Amino acid sequence: MLHLLEPSRSSATQQRAGTRSIINVAGRVAIGGRSIAIIAGPCSVEGRDMLLDSARAVRDAGAVMLRGGAYKPRTSPYSFRGLGEEALDILADAREATGLPVVTEILDPRQLERIESVADVLQVGARNMQNFALLSEVGKSRKPVLLKRGLSATMDELLLAAEYVLAAGNPNVILCERGIRTFETATRNTLDVAAVPVLKSRTHLPVIVDPSHAGGHWELVEPLALAAIAAGADGLIVEVHPNPSGALSDGEQSLTPARFARLVERCGAVATAIGRQVAVPKSGAAATASVVRAPNGAKSAVKSGAKSGVRLGAKAGVIGAAPASVVRDASRSVEEPWPA
Amino acid sequence: MLHLLEPSRSSATQQRAGTRSIINVAGRVAIGGRSIAIIAGPCSVEGRDMLLDSARAVRDAGAVMLRGGAYKPRTSPYSFRGLGEEALDILADAREATGLPVVTEILDPRQLERIESVADVLQVGARNMQNFALLSEVGKSRKPVLLKRGLSATMDELLLAAEYVLAAGNPNVILCERGIRTFETATRNTLDVAAVPVLKSRTHLPVIVDPSHAGGHWELVEPLALAAIAAGADGLIVEVHPNPSGALSDGEQSLTPARFARLVERCGAVATAIGRQVAVPKSGAAATASVVRAPNGAKSAVKSGAKSGVRLGAKAGVIGAAPASVVRDASRSVEEPWPA
Amino acid sequence: MLHLLEPSRSSATQQRAGTRSIINVAGRVAIGGRSIAIIAGPCSVEGRDMLLDSARAVRDAGAVMLRGGAYKPRTSPYSFRGLGEEALDILADAREATGLPVVTEILDPRQLERIESVADVLQVGARNMQNFALLSEVGKSRKPVLLKRGLSATMDELLLAAEYVLAAGNPNVILCERGIRTFETATRNTLDVAAVPVLKSRTHLPVIVDPSHAGGHWELVEPLALAAIAAGADGLIVEVHPNPSGALSDGEQSLTPARFARLVERCGAVATAIGRQVAVPKSGAAATASVVRAPNGAKSAVKSGAKSGVRLGAKAGVIGAAPASVVRDASRSVEEPWPA
Amino acid sequence: MLHLLEPSRSSATQQRAGTRSIINVAGRVAIGGRSIAIIAGPCSVEGRDMLLDSARAVRDAGAVMLRGGAYKPRTSPYSFRGLGEEALDILADAREATGLPVVTEILDPRQLERIESVADVLQVGARNMQNFALLSEVGKSRKPVLLKRGLSATMDELLLAAEYVLAAGNPNVILCERGIRTFETATRNTLDVAAVPVLKSRTHLPVIVDPSHAGGHWELVEPLALAAIAAGADGLIVEVHPNPSGALSDGEQSLTPARFARLVERCGAVATAIGRQVAVPKSGAAATASVVRAPNGAKSAVKSGAKSGVRLGAKAGVIGAAPASVVRDASRSVEEPWPA
Repeated sequence: MLHLLEPSRSSATQQRAGTRSIINVAGRVAIGGRSIAIIAGPCSVEGRDMLLDSARAVRDAGAVMLRGGAYKPRTSPYSFRGLGEEALDILADAREATGLPVVTEILDPRQLERIESVADVLQVGARNMQNFALLSEVGKSRKPVLLKRGLSATMDELLLAAEYVLAAGNPNVILCERGIRTFETATRNTLDVAAVPVLKSRTHLPVIVDPSHAGGHWELVEPLALAAIAAGADGLIVEVHPNPSGALSDGEQSLTPARFARLVERCGAVATAIGRQVAVPKSGAAATASVVRAPNGAKSAVKSGAKSGVRLGAKAGVIGAAPASVVRDASRSVEEPWPA
Repeated sequence: MLHLLEPSRSSATQQRAGTRSIINVAGRVAIGGRSIAIIAGPCSVEGRDMLLDSARAVRDAGAVMLRGGAYKPRTSPYSFRGLGEEALDILADAREATGLPVVTEILDPRQLERIESVADVLQVGARNMQNFALLSEVGKSRKPVLLKRGLSATMDELLLAAEYVLAAGNPNVILCERGIRTFETATRNTLDVAAVPVLKSRTHLPVIVDPSHAGGHWELVEPLALAAIAAGADGLIVEVHPNPSGALSDGEQSLTPARFARLVERCGAVATAIGRQVAVPKSGAAATASVVRAPNGAKSAVKSGAKSGVRLGAKAGVIGAAPASVVRDASRSVEEPWPA
Repeated sequence: MLHLLEPSRSSATQQRAGTRSIINVAGRVAIGGRSIAIIAGPCSVEGRDMLLDSARAVRDAGAVMLRGGAYKPRTSPYSFRGLGEEALDILADAREATGLPVVTEILDPRQLERIESVADVLQVGARNMQNFALLSEVGKSRKPVLLKRGLSATMDELLLAAEYVLAAGNPNVILCERGIRTFETATRNTLDVAAVPVLKSRTHLPVIVDPSHAGGHWELVEPLALAAIAAGADGLIVEVHPNPSGALSDGEQSLTPARFARLVERCGAVATAIGRQVAVPKSGAAATASVVRAPNGAKSAVKSGAKSGVRLGAKAGVIGAAPASVVRDASRSVEEPWPA
Repeated sequence: MLHLLEPSRSSATQQRAGTRSIINVAGRVAIGGRSIAIIAGPCSVEGRDMLLDSARAVRDAGAVMLRGGAYKPRTSPYSFRGLGEEALDILADAREATGLPVVTEILDPRQLERIESVADVLQVGARNMQNFALLSEVGKSRKPVLLKRGLSATMDELLLAAEYVLAAGNPNVILCERGIRTFETATRNTLDVAAVPVLKSRTHLPVIVDPSHAGGHWELVEPLALAAIAAGADGLIVEVHPNPSGALSDGEQSLTPARFARLVERCGAVATAIGRQVAVPKSGAAATASVVRAPNGAKSAVKSGAKSGVRLGAKAGVIGAAPASVVRDASRSVEEPWPA
């Protein structure tokens, strides 16, 4: 365990640093334990066939969750901004067809209800890392949040952004390093691989890496993915496209399914070398989104917490209220991933 | 006129680079012409007396617009986040009492209606520069938008963020350089003073500077303000607090009213040296927000368009539709016709 | 006077922060007083006629010192690396012909004797700011040193680099802000204009600005120069070339003599606005380099100090030994007593 | 093989990108082949016993080369600057005692002859990456050069710095990524792990990583080392000190011998996972510096050239002259490390 940095304050993200929370995604994927979760899929949902093909391909290659953008944040208003509502329906179908839980990005607090009805994990993108209205809104959700580090956000700021979500009542945050902006122009961003061990020394939350946006070029995805795992990442989120050269966005950095399959295999070897393993997909259909919240009305994605009826997470304004049941899961399960 | 950079595309912000749009604020302040507009006030509205005192002090010292935060974006959820609704009421009173138009920050698209009812200018902060949902929302407003450059946004990205607003129908955008994030820690941010001439070479929109956030220390505010004006800035937005050491936020970088008065005077001297002048406040009560859209339709970008039924600015998706009426309004501008 | 930052240690550069040393260059130019010194000339010495033309042109336009590179640090070994020895002879001739003192860059400690025989000021470039062997070597010289901030050097590091020179016995250091490296690519570097007031609050040494390298484009030189002066710079170093489009290096950022003349005039107006003035060239031939050191064998470039027999500057290893006589000399400075 | 970037020019470093040169160090270590070379030792040589203890400890733990600074570049002139000459003698003794080749830093071109008499590899530090006088000087040496990337140097600039060495006649350059300067302050520098695959796609030269300076804290050294190897690094250079808390420099980031032994072991596992291996020390005493040039002349870039009288590598000014013998070695030995 690392003790690199003093926690800057008593906070829900930083207390219990060194212990590990495991985030339960739809009863099918555990993020933060010994197993490394690989999430994959296209940058954007470009159509039904394309997405279903992608979903099956990444599942067959070893992904345990599907990514795909319905609403795309684009630097220019004239770029392709996603299929929106239609894409959500397609994602739901892909989820049904493959059993893979789905992560998709939310851009606007007013989209929460609709996106939450489909997504298993809500992604808050790098450009919205300090969109505090959005953070507070997803903090009211019971779905886990994948929070990407801002382009020039310090690790402190990333943790404080996560704190907004926890403070609003949602303890299930997955941090994501995706490259920072530096003077170097040879790569799209600069993967700050040290963020993995530093963040893990400061928070109990899991930390994953996006090697696709970090490097910005498909040839860099594999070496960066391997580096991330060697440094201790709890998962990867990788752009895969059936036909990268025809992609509507991020084709340059997307892997073909074949290259992705090779990446999963090599990641497995490195994971083994450091005493971990790459998570394998569960067979059978995914729990539906509603089931996640179902059993006894507790709102948490964390079943044990739900069972105990304990209200999870830090309440807004209650500094340092610990996501206790999540932590408890962690203590039970570092060596034994939880949906196992 | 500068021709530094190729416009990256035919766009509403970048076409007519070299010509200057003048933004009409509440029929009282013109931003973008020969006169330099100085906006001042406290970081946050902390209470009624404090704000009214501040408003009178900055007006007497030469400010032509009042700034004050009702909703504050704070890195930590546990910092003071503003008085919210109550602050909006206080701002309206200060506007009434001093005749100064008001600029305040919007954080959430759902706040638009309420904030618009009070504010003369809607501020989009640095952390929301790529909050595309918010940009599109303020693009539907008839109020001018003060758009701050993101902490690590390139000038290109700032222009494309402005493009979101213009593309949604609002041609009245004021760009604001407020310092960028670099490796240097001696200052809060690094004022990129070159952004002023570079942006002015690429867009017709006015460019102002925030020397308070750039430097992060009150002793730097005056030299940075003078530098901004010397470099061609069309205005300043400055934090002034009646009692900086007791401020709830940003006290370190706030000027006292006396120091602000000295700053205005020195800015006037530098403005004269480069053939411009510091704008002087109009006497008489401010037009109310509704009046702005009223009298004879001449001066407001909003109103002339509204009356004629012509949809102003670039329509979403209509690349390069010029904010023609703004440019036309500009030529008949409130303070003075600038190239008259 | 600014009190921004705690001096990090008792040191020769940082003690007496707030007082101002004036550096005497060849008995002809004072840098650090009320007058602002403008240094100009081509990036490289490309030939005799070219340099003499440039020297006369910049003198006639108002420069008080000539710049010109004999040895050029180039990123690629295959770029033009300067005329070397031959250029030094040409610089000596230009000095003779125009009376302008000369500043030129030293790249290698082994060049000191030869360059010192011609140059009135030794320039240490940005890429060598932490070349400690070179800093120690120029610290043994009696000629003033123009020390450029490194591309990613903090202000602290710049002051510590200056400390190497002072610690080696040479108190005559002129600091130069020339733009830092950031993520922004619209300009060659990012002029950190706040470095001027911050450095002046921390050291007694003069601070000048290089607007040519900062912006990287001739159209930015004037606005950046004006900004630098408004922020308190004690001088400028500007690239001027008789025919920029044919320059062997840095043509893009070089001014024509006509544009430079306009820049000097506008700088004069801004200087007046802030209570300073642009230095005017002395008439008559320059003191020769040897005269500077001559009278009674004292090694200081500052004659009055030399006369008094006071050993100038901090001795190597004597931490905090003040360059006392420089400060005293400053009060009797060549151009004018500065706080007189 | 990666083809990420167009070579910017026909050059000695960039031609044959994709092929791999293997650098022969003292006939004992091959850098750039299938085996990964781990270099270790203290930041500075602090004394004889301390260095000999360190050398034996790192050799026993698996290092194949000894690092240790005799002349230290320090930001402040008042920090410990190394034992100088005395340290060189101690390094020679440690070399003798352990058989480990030695790498030490050169700061000044005038030190070449003396340092070359002891060192097997000449290190050019990050602060001197663009000290072109020094680069040209080590380019005249027959000893390999370990060239560290500058704090804000782009990969292009690193390659061009290497080009200075090759152009001066020395084809044996080992590139070293050691972290770049960014806005993030949680780590000393930001390890740009993507530099490993990008550089290897652009040059035939080996690329190693310094995880100690990158992270700046001993707890980060292991995860960064593992990440570097996973990303394809050809070696590591690691700071190890018998008593880190008592170190005269860089104690914070130094490993104890025990932690270093664990690091080597874990690196071995990751290397195996990606189809490589960690180099193992050769038994027996090291060849002396002069011996390196002797035995059969076949494999060494140094020796074969020396013998045949052929001037090796690219001559200054001869763009693209290939470091032929190095490349030849490479073609024989990617799978079979050369001194094996």
